[in-house]
Amino acid sequence: MSGFVSFVSSGPGDPELLTVKAVNRLQKADAILFDDLSAGPILEHAGPETDLVGVGKRAGRPSPKQDHVSQLLVDYAQTGANVVRLKSGDSGIFGRLEEEITALRAASIAYEIIPGVTSACAAAAAAGIPLTRRLVARRVQFVTGHDVAGALPGDLNLQSLADPGATTVLFMPKRTFPELADKLFATGLRRDCPALLAENVSHPDQTLERTTMEALAQKLATEITSAPGLILFGELAEA
Amino acid sequence: MSGFVSFVSSGPGDPELLTVKAVNRLQKADAILFDDLSAGPILEHAGPETDLVGVGKRAGRPSPKQDHVSQLLVDYAQTGANVVRLKSGDSGIFGRLEEEITALRAASIAYEIIPGVTSACAAAAAAGIPLTRRLVARRVQFVTGHDVAGALPGDLNLQSLADPGATTVLFMPKRTFPELADKLFATGLRRDCPALLAENVSHPDQTLERTTMEALAQKLATEITSAPGLILFGELAEA
Repeated sequence: MSGFVSFVSSGPGDPELLTVKAVNRLQKADAILFDDLSAGPILEHAGPETDLVGVGKRAGRPSPKQDHVSQLLVDYAQTGANVVRLKSGDSGIFGRLEEEITALRAASIAYEIIPGVTSACAAAAAAGIPLTRRLVARRVQFVTGHDVAGALPGDLNLQSLADPGATTVLFMPKRTFPELADKLFATGLRRDCPALLAENVSHPDQTLERTTMEALAQKLATEITSAPGLILFGELAEA
Repeated sequence: MSGFVSFVSSGPGDPELLTVKAVNRLQKADAILFDDLSAGPILEHAGPETDLVGVGKRAGRPSPKQDHVSQLLVDYAQTGANVVRLKSGDSGIFGRLEEEITALRAASIAYEIIPGVTSACAAAAAAGIPLTRRLVARRVQFVTGHDVAGALPGDLNLQSLADPGATTVLFMPKRTFPELADKLFATGLRRDCPALLAENVSHPDQTLERTTMEALAQKLATEITSAPGLILFGELAEA
């Protein structure tokens, strides 16, 4: 008797940025496995009998328990339950979705993925800007600022990130940003390239700071808060 | 007396992929300006008194009337109306949002942007795959396959698009794909790089075709339908 897993994207945090489909899945779930970032009011859609299971990952901390999360997901599904795996933002973008899918496939458990609003789109929307612009920004790219150990990934495509014709959004970028900015300046990116630091996107305590790459690198070299953040850079960041 | 404009992202088409906030805005709108792609069941959220205004752009056709759409938006808002500008996918991604924002700013009309599910995320979700993978695909990029005249943009960053460490999603790509594929092969992309053609994403007639870059280029050189489509390529396309 094997259950079913819905990977449900919760969006950036504002409960109103859940999709209708996500709300439906939450309401019908027997169990919901959620990360810290997607908790709170969103879980109020769950029924009174639903098992709510926090699997507690947070941006900026190492996440050694991925195997454990995958196993828990398999275990719940194998009881025959209708399981929701709630993931913040869009689950397919830097959500480590693949490792959980691999575990489900190995256990022959069926799943679906409900896409959602990625925090990159929500950050741009909150700032009142688009991510693309005709002629000027025909490419938008999302990149993670750290590897599993929390360091700047060593194999970044710097030429691609320094391209003035793109809009770039860095996920979980704060600790490694000064190092990355130096590499991008060396690759040709303007030091005064417009940048936007967006924290707690779509939450009541959201902050947006319009700045430049150089000023932001200087700031983050000495001062980092634990608030989940994104950095958006490119010409559109000053629009 | 100036109204207010909500740019509402409708998501890829499935009415259940609207956000809760989008549904709320549609219900309260005095007027809704919509593109063909976002029409249909989504408009059923509008009240009986709401003006529904089709501004009719379709993928693959030139869109000469952008100025006209922007002017119409300003005109409606200046009647004091609560205007929804409905855009398919996420409005900030290849939605020509910026031109309409510029017109609103020039007329001192306030606006907000409601982010939504981009069709790139919906296509990957429909195929059961993530857009990023630890170690292998740390960068995801969205690129448009045509310029205003419908041709392949001349200033594409080919090195960035041919990067085997990225997942790439091409928007409105079909007519220019054979030409682009040739350029990417010349830049070093594997001819057998996995590719996914996704058409009518999230609609009842959705189709997903897993293929390779070379086979898809050959197919699209001779056979193109008018169905709105995306092409996703990179290692994850065969996951």
